[in-house]
Amino acid sequence: MFSNIRVVLVDTSHPGNIGAAARGMKNMFLDRLYLVRPKHYPSAEATARASGADDVLAAAVVCETLDQALTGCGLVLGMSARLRKLPWPLLDAREGGKLAVAESACTEVALVFGNEHAGLSNEELDRCNYLVHIPANPAYSSLNLGAAVQVLAYEVMMAEREGIEPVRDGQEGEKLASADEMERFYEHLQRVLVEIAFLDPDNPRHLMRRMRRLFGRSHVDQNEMNILRGILTAVETKIGQKS
Amino acid sequence: MFSNIRVVLVDTSHPGNIGAAARGMKNMFLDRLYLVRPKHYPSAEATARASGADDVLAAAVVCETLDQALTGCGLVLGMSARLRKLPWPLLDAREGGKLAVAESACTEVALVFGNEHAGLSNEELDRCNYLVHIPANPAYSSLNLGAAVQVLAYEVMMAEREGIEPVRDGQEGEKLASADEMERFYEHLQRVLVEIAFLDPDNPRHLMRRMRRLFGRSHVDQNEMNILRGILTAVETKIGQKS
Repeated sequence: MFSNIRVVLVDTSHPGNIGAAARGMKNMFLDRLYLVRPKHYPSAEATARASGADDVLAAAVVCETLDQALTGCGLVLGMSARLRKLPWPLLDAREGGKLAVAESACTEVALVFGNEHAGLSNEELDRCNYLVHIPANPAYSSLNLGAAVQVLAYEVMMAEREGIEPVRDGQEGEKLASADEMERFYEHLQRVLVEIAFLDPDNPRHLMRRMRRLFGRSHVDQNEMNILRGILTAVETKIGQKS
Repeated sequence: MFSNIRVVLVDTSHPGNIGAAARGMKNMFLDRLYLVRPKHYPSAEATARASGADDVLAAAVVCETLDQALTGCGLVLGMSARLRKLPWPLLDAREGGKLAVAESACTEVALVFGNEHAGLSNEELDRCNYLVHIPANPAYSSLNLGAAVQVLAYEVMMAEREGIEPVRDGQEGEKLASADEMERFYEHLQRVLVEIAFLDPDNPRHLMRRMRRLFGRSHVDQNEMNILRGILTAVETKIGQKS
């Protein structure tokens, strides 16, 4: 869990959004929730939407003012749906996630989300070191509050994860077929394609190149290689039986 | 708008999630929604949660089967909360967003989300070229469906915004085989594998899943599909001649 990063929801109207925020936080290793003047709280709807994250709700701190919720924070990031006229340092969600994780190593960090309709007031934005904006369709830019918390929490988790976990592409565990095994497969394939009269033995190049390209992209593993060779042998056996 | 990328929701239980998905999509420039066997739809709750994205809901296509919803798609990405035992090619959400945007330049792409509780069935995963996983707290890894759509849609938008180069190795220009063409190929392959006595007709599942995995990774193009179907037909012809 990110013990130095808190989520602060200000003047939230719909308790369902509080529950959704708790769930999205816990999904992404965040569990410190502050609620400033929630309109309805506690609420059965919040608990229902929190699903298995009711522990995050139960531990939520309810405050009268934003300043109370920000006590001890060295970095405050305020979410803003609109691109404000106010010339304020602006980060996108990815940059915001990276900054939050970097700073959380040495200080408490707050991610602050305003009311569903009005967002954060200018006075509240004054408390923030940066505004964070989730890039979106300018014709329809207002994310649901729970969805915005989910995206920010996701970017925090991704920032932490980056450089730690290597990129995984596709198969795990299974050893890939070696270059020489692939060569023997292509020889076998070519032989069978000639036997079934699909390939002109005097001019095999073009088709075999297409086959190499196709299977070369697949990163065929050992198990799959055994299956492919088995299929070729089964074709030969069947043809042999019939002749 | 991403005119070549569709979101497919399968067996959705809660109409609120359909509305949330529509809103999250429109926020991120996605507007093509397919609903396979929604439990309650249309629904006032879906419309309420869609907020200003009711146009996306109104244009949603309701289907009886996943195959119908995937018609014409050259790339199918299936969301998976669990890390399956089934070793299927796995991308994280960021990689998935990049691949979707890259491929959408030349083919239709589907982002497929399963039921809230059960996810996608193994038969539905068979239709997918890749699984996409949103990295999360392993102690609480199941995102709300609407939140998962929001995160994927966000990564699609970010991939587009960052201006990405296509990641496809090899093919250029050639149109990919569509999901329905791939299904016909797998049917043909299964028939031939039974005819050559390589596949037990009473228990085809395991082997055919391996074949789907192998060819699913390859992004088979139209030209290659013609060759593969031609090979299968040539095997059948040869067997027929000899019998």
